[in-house]
Amino acid sequence: MFESASLKHSVDKAQFKREEPKLREALLNAQFDLSAKKKFPVLVVIGGVEGAGKGETVNLLHEWMDPRHILTSAFDDPTQDERERPPMWRYWRALPGKGRLGIFFGAWHSWPIVERVFGKLSDAQLDQHISSARRFEKMLSDEGALILKFWFHLTKKQQKKRLEELEASKETRWRVTEQEWRFFDRHDKFEKVAEHYLRRTSTGEAPWIVVAGADPHYRALTVGKTLLAAMRERLDEKPARAAPDKSPPLLPSVDKLNVIRALKLEQPMERDEYERALEKWQGRLALLSRHKRFGKLAVVAVFEGNDAAGKGGAIRRITQALDARLYRGVSIAAPTEEERAQPYLWRFWRHIPRRGRISIFDRSWYGRVLVERVEGFCSEADWMRAYSEINDFESELARHHIVVVKFWLAISQEEQMKRFKAREATSFKRFKITEEDWRNRKKWDDYETAVCDMVDRTSTQRASWTLVEANNKYFARIKVLKTLVKALEAKLEE
Amino acid sequence: MFESASLKHSVDKAQFKREEPKLREALLNAQFDLSAKKKFPVLVVIGGVEGAGKGETVNLLHEWMDPRHILTSAFDDPTQDERERPPMWRYWRALPGKGRLGIFFGAWHSWPIVERVFGKLSDAQLDQHISSARRFEKMLSDEGALILKFWFHLTKKQQKKRLEELEASKETRWRVTEQEWRFFDRHDKFEKVAEHYLRRTSTGEAPWIVVAGADPHYRALTVGKTLLAAMRERLDEKPARAAPDKSPPLLPSVDKLNVIRALKLEQPMERDEYERALEKWQGRLALLSRHKRFGKLAVVAVFEGNDAAGKGGAIRRITQALDARLYRGVSIAAPTEEERAQPYLWRFWRHIPRRGRISIFDRSWYGRVLVERVEGFCSEADWMRAYSEINDFESELARHHIVVVKFWLAISQEEQMKRFKAREATSFKRFKITEEDWRNRKKWDDYETAVCDMVDRTSTQRASWTLVEANNKYFARIKVLKTLVKALEAKLEE
Repeated sequence: MFESASLKHSVDKAQFKREEPKLREALLNAQFDLSAKKKFPVLVVIGGVEGAGKGETVNLLHEWMDPRHILTSAFDDPTQDERERPPMWRYWRALPGKGRLGIFFGAWHSWPIVERVFGKLSDAQLDQHISSARRFEKMLSDEGALILKFWFHLTKKQQKKRLEELEASKETRWRVTEQEWRFFDRHDKFEKVAEHYLRRTSTGEAPWIVVAGADPHYRALTVGKTLLAAMRERLDEKPARAAPDKSPPLLPSVDKLNVIRALKLEQPMERDEYERALEKWQGRLALLSRHKRFGKLAVVAVFEGNDAAGKGGAIRRITQALDARLYRGVSIAAPTEEERAQPYLWRFWRHIPRRGRISIFDRSWYGRVLVERVEGFCSEADWMRAYSEINDFESELARHHIVVVKFWLAISQEEQMKRFKAREATSFKRFKITEEDWRNRKKWDDYETAVCDMVDRTSTQRASWTLVEANNKYFARIKVLKTLVKALEAKLEE
Repeated sequence: MFESASLKHSVDKAQFKREEPKLREALLNAQFDLSAKKKFPVLVVIGGVEGAGKGETVNLLHEWMDPRHILTSAFDDPTQDERERPPMWRYWRALPGKGRLGIFFGAWHSWPIVERVFGKLSDAQLDQHISSARRFEKMLSDEGALILKFWFHLTKKQQKKRLEELEASKETRWRVTEQEWRFFDRHDKFEKVAEHYLRRTSTGEAPWIVVAGADPHYRALTVGKTLLAAMRERLDEKPARAAPDKSPPLLPSVDKLNVIRALKLEQPMERDEYERALEKWQGRLALLSRHKRFGKLAVVAVFEGNDAAGKGGAIRRITQALDARLYRGVSIAAPTEEERAQPYLWRFWRHIPRRGRISIFDRSWYGRVLVERVEGFCSEADWMRAYSEINDFESELARHHIVVVKFWLAISQEEQMKRFKAREATSFKRFKITEEDWRNRKKWDDYETAVCDMVDRTSTQRASWTLVEANNKYFARIKVLKTLVKALEAKLEE
């Protein structure tokens, strides 16, 4: 991996002075086109050994290009905000939107390498990180991002010389602390681990580019030219050829049975029984939210369901039991411009609760495999890969002690018709029924198939779907409350 | 994952009789088209719980379709032939070529699940298998294969009933052994592990399709219809739209230095020194090949280099030292028709040595990132992904105690010219120089760039490249022999 970068590469001052102005202009032009066309984001990931010129090179990129359109993020020790969320949250937050350039210092690759070097991770655990980094980068690339990963390399001898130089000068002495020397002592081990990591995370879509870091002119031109060529290639590509579809089609069941049709939608519950149950379960929920260990966890509750199935009513029965400072209701409609410029999961990562908090999603990331699938808003390949992306997303949440509960509220076609008509008849409810609702209704069977596939492919041990028979609103609300309470109790007893 | 398949799906006899003839005819037609067009292979992977009708369904597929074009492989305990090679060897061997249908019973997914259930693998180790299965299937899919993975499911209750039924009948009693009941006892654990495995290996290109296994008609129609729809979709696809290229371009170095140019190609060695050294190193190699632990390992030696760099001569100096029964020379030219119908690594897997044997490749899988890249025989996306596919391949070999040594024999342009002319002048060597050699020579710089990228991206701790300065044939041959001997000694001392 480091063969070329271990050579004594260098570019002399004359060559640099000759090439720099042209490169600079071309980079600025590419950045301008990127920003004007807004076709894709550029993600520059920076890694490598201490003293190999990572910072200097990034500074130069800022000098060369328009810094207002560069978003640079350094990931050192996580902030409190970050510590209270799943580890991937901070990377999602920093992703550049389409048309922008994001520079990531020491992102998801840095700490697993360091922890392996210092023996805090086993080989197998490192491989788990590798495979999750691969899945994450594949998702970004499938969503259109151009990913460039630069690894700045120094040989052991070069690194020693560099650290000594930095120490010798007054202006740079502060940059060399004990930590730098501690890392230097483990140079060989570091190189060995890095080689394994780089090799396994170097993919066709997101290869590592190893840069010889000793000569400032050489490394600057290498990074600049590589960045330019990659941006230019993608910018000048013929417009949007679709990738050939490799996904086999998913079929509806060959008999008439499916998880939705297997439900008995009409469930008995009278008003007085409902009111007693409501008081009981809301009381238990209120107590749980004040439990001394509640601050160690968080809750993500997802509501999906047929139109007019009563999602809003069920959500209100939960929030009535909670302190308003504890929860946030997130209602998902069409994405904003900023959200459309990002991978589709980005808008949901924004609302991931900190510890001790609850986020309640009225519709969610499942739009990808429901409405976007049925209406053809995304390709088959896109929604097919979404199942595993969503599973990755939710297991990242669950691993970070977030309780994920997901409800599908199901009503019959007849019940829906009754409710639509009732809404139209009531002046203050008329806004709740639109043309779109009537259109969706015509695709009832397609939605049903999509829901069944969704349940099969995303109901997992850590984040299972609860199907709620919702023709009777009382019954549905109590089932939702009870499921949430039981899930919380189970987690608090862990 | 198992929600839908846990329902009581069934298809009655009347429906089955009505649908079967049509399905059968359509499947036969699809199989005929597949075989006529030879565009892609179909890989049907069968997994699931005991007693869920895996065998019966596959038998039915044989009945419905033309069995001469179905290649069924069951992977139970490995045979001796298989045990002496890396674990993936047997799957490669069984891959169907383009235009054919291969059915894999309990392939790479089966034993990791079972070993996890019985506590022989940790969670992290299981995740390593998962990630290697994902990479393998992605490679197959990138190479064009249509992959269908069926998982036959039974609930615990259904499985118990099924095993009791089988036991009760004289004809089927033999199928239920202690092992089946031992598995049954761990049904819950099995389901939990399988869910995790299936979820993580379910990708857009190769999703698992979970089939309710209790009702024979239902499961047969489900598998048949899914197979038909997937084959039909791929067969009827518009011809070869290329996937958009997502790989950033790899640049040549910005200075004039690279790993090839850094070599001092002219190395001193006189004839008598050579002959003494040859005797010494051939002697050591001969002894090593008779070492008592040599039978525990195997050797793969790869020779690549400029045209006329002396690969053949270097190889002969190795084989002279070996018992002819120990080694096999593999000379790689244009692929045969059978080989072209397979993923590009397939033809090399064929020649992977058993334990105690040596395979010497005169040119190799590196053609993908050398000639195929330079001549444009494959797309940029194809050769970019090849680096990690090759790394996966070689680390599979290395993990299985195969010593992998790789030589690049480098000569200068002047030396090559001299040798070309000498070959043309010598009647019995004239066959060694062709038009193609002269053509390749014109692309010297492109090949040099490709070689540098190859070395950087595929030289790993377990399978590193040795660059051989080969203007002096004597020096080159001794360096090759010595490197091989040292690698073997290091491995035997491990």
